[in-house]
Amino acid sequence: MTQVSDIARRAKAASQILKTLSGKCRADALDRMAGKLLACREEVFAANAEDLAAAPDLSEAFKKRLAVTDKIFDYMLNRLREAAALPDPVGRILEGRTMPSGLEVRRIAVPIGVIAMIYEARPNVTTDAAAVALKSGNAVILKGGSESIRTNRVLARAMRSAAAEAGLPEDVIQLIDSTDHAAVSELLKQEKSIDLVIPRGGKSLIRAIAEGTRIPVLKHYDGICHQYIARDAPTEMAVKLVVNSKCQRVEVCNALETLLVDAEAAARVLPAVAEALTQKGVELRGCGETKKFLPGCVPATEEDWDTEYLAPILSVRIVRGIDEAMAHIAQHGSGHTDGIITNSLDLAERFIAGVDSASVLVNASTRLSGGGDYGMGAVVGISTDRLHARGPVGPAELCTYKWVAIGSGQLRA
Amino acid sequence: MTQVSDIARRAKAASQILKTLSGKCRADALDRMAGKLLACREEVFAANAEDLAAAPDLSEAFKKRLAVTDKIFDYMLNRLREAAALPDPVGRILEGRTMPSGLEVRRIAVPIGVIAMIYEARPNVTTDAAAVALKSGNAVILKGGSESIRTNRVLARAMRSAAAEAGLPEDVIQLIDSTDHAAVSELLKQEKSIDLVIPRGGKSLIRAIAEGTRIPVLKHYDGICHQYIARDAPTEMAVKLVVNSKCQRVEVCNALETLLVDAEAAARVLPAVAEALTQKGVELRGCGETKKFLPGCVPATEEDWDTEYLAPILSVRIVRGIDEAMAHIAQHGSGHTDGIITNSLDLAERFIAGVDSASVLVNASTRLSGGGDYGMGAVVGISTDRLHARGPVGPAELCTYKWVAIGSGQLRA
Repeated sequence: MTQVSDIARRAKAASQILKTLSGKCRADALDRMAGKLLACREEVFAANAEDLAAAPDLSEAFKKRLAVTDKIFDYMLNRLREAAALPDPVGRILEGRTMPSGLEVRRIAVPIGVIAMIYEARPNVTTDAAAVALKSGNAVILKGGSESIRTNRVLARAMRSAAAEAGLPEDVIQLIDSTDHAAVSELLKQEKSIDLVIPRGGKSLIRAIAEGTRIPVLKHYDGICHQYIARDAPTEMAVKLVVNSKCQRVEVCNALETLLVDAEAAARVLPAVAEALTQKGVELRGCGETKKFLPGCVPATEEDWDTEYLAPILSVRIVRGIDEAMAHIAQHGSGHTDGIITNSLDLAERFIAGVDSASVLVNASTRLSGGGDYGMGAVVGISTDRLHARGPVGPAELCTYKWVAIGSGQLRA
Repeated sequence: MTQVSDIARRAKAASQILKTLSGKCRADALDRMAGKLLACREEVFAANAEDLAAAPDLSEAFKKRLAVTDKIFDYMLNRLREAAALPDPVGRILEGRTMPSGLEVRRIAVPIGVIAMIYEARPNVTTDAAAVALKSGNAVILKGGSESIRTNRVLARAMRSAAAEAGLPEDVIQLIDSTDHAAVSELLKQEKSIDLVIPRGGKSLIRAIAEGTRIPVLKHYDGICHQYIARDAPTEMAVKLVVNSKCQRVEVCNALETLLVDAEAAARVLPAVAEALTQKGVELRGCGETKKFLPGCVPATEEDWDTEYLAPILSVRIVRGIDEAMAHIAQHGSGHTDGIITNSLDLAERFIAGVDSASVLVNASTRLSGGGDYGMGAVVGISTDRLHARGPVGPAELCTYKWVAIGSGQLRA
């Protein structure tokens, strides 16, 4: 396992050089990475086909995540190019002032250093993570799911070669080329070289990683996301928002899991919402009150309110007013993304102030809580941590800062 | 030990209410806290005298930290009043944009929640921590050194009563009224109620706390601070800055510990610097080269470069150029505060870009790296972590943020 510690040391050394290179140079590397990937497109597809063939017993959902389709390949290229085009997050002056003493004080964004990404067998995360890390001047160590190892090898080789052509040390991107789980344990011991670990995957995996390392971990836990249909919510908008929040993609963290319907809106809105969802094949699990409006729905148990289905299932609860809605979200939500559907400014403001989630939405699909729709470009995930980065994690969130103070001999009195 | 979990639960409940109160209300509470403390001034001094009398065997340095003098009492009041007068850090719009879809996206500063401070027997930290936490809308649990328990009881009672008068739940400030060390272990288990632990004290204590809890810990490790006298450094300014950095207060984290002198400046500057330091009673420990200029100095060992003396001792090393200076800082520094003394814009810019420390100074005393001199008001300490908060930790650093997105029915395509 000396290999993993070598990788970490090389990443640290590469990150020191990377810190001295310009944003233009990093953007050029990202553009070249897209170009290089395009040039070895057939190699990527061939390796991916081998990965898929090597694991015939995987579930369809698993294979879907592992497969690099034309669409996903284009998406990967675009994310690299988009990252190249984004403004440089490094060197931003975050605040500054001249003190009465004449001391000029400023807080400046700088790279974190070395970031280790531990993630599922999803090849697009390999390129996304490299794009976001490099954009923000960080070296990255990639450990993707073992089932994607052949695809990741091709992707990493192409990106490293492009980085070198742009004048970056190629070790700014490194792949842990091992399917041995001990490699992860070894990675988590490299606290002298690695500044941040970002694990993605199941809750238990993330928890095990967070508790098994001295390196700071940016956690991406589950999304038990809510929409609250307020008493005045327009029926048509409510139907569209709930359907999109739930159905646009069911297996992701910002998909809707629980619908809260104000008792005063239920008779008007709920039947229409339920009909649209049922047409989309969504199973509804309702509270006792819900049964009055939707006699055919499955009864919800207490467990349903705490469940991230990641499936075409939606729990539905009737609430008496916004306070009950917010209390439900506080008790059962995961602080990821929660929305209100209303035309009342008063209700909107109360919801924004009262719901303590990474994303609080008014009249918008929960599926919009993410880097692209917030204008952040490529992201490595959506943090459910409260500290450092909360919500989508893009290039700016992979920066830290330093204070620079310029004086002319100022002393402490 | 149910007591500690009760305290944590009550803090959580109080923090939920505190989040809904205005900045004006919090500022009013801080002002009243100063007023209340002033009203029970004699009680504070009496309790502090009891604390001092109860521990006659403490070192002079320990007693100095424990003692509430007139000057320290005034300082405590001022810090509360200054915090009251600072702009409200909660609700700041940190960034915002309207997306092409019409979605209005903004990132807003919000309180972290519940903060536990674990610190030495220094009564002024009790009021400082309460001031910074409350200013940023957080509930705070205070666990000061056992030797200060009587003083802290009076301080906490006064601050709680003032908070209640201002309409805040009094449990926004709570003291762990126990000298039992098990109380700390119990506190570190309250991950459901406590959002952040800030330990202050020795390195081994902080490390033990960080490794013994699932709660995020903001670490305040040591400051091995450097000044680099560049080849062109003006002699007089260099003497004044080095003396102030080292001698203004020797026992604090931003005091100077190692002086790096460019070989080209040594003959001109080093004798004058050494004379001024020797007059102040500072022991110099020099490298082999240093001995050529200061034949009487103590020889430095390798260990000296990695030592935070917190005492009137300074290690001195001659370096050949700025790169050697920066390499020394990278290898031996603690990333706290490092400065350069120069009139060269080129050298200043290279030093700022190349030194990766929380504070990088040009022609300023290391003692200026702190909340007051950076215009941040009261702070709870100086973080040596890279994530979330780096350098001085004031009210803005005790905030997190949430994303708010306001739409009119926007869906994900």
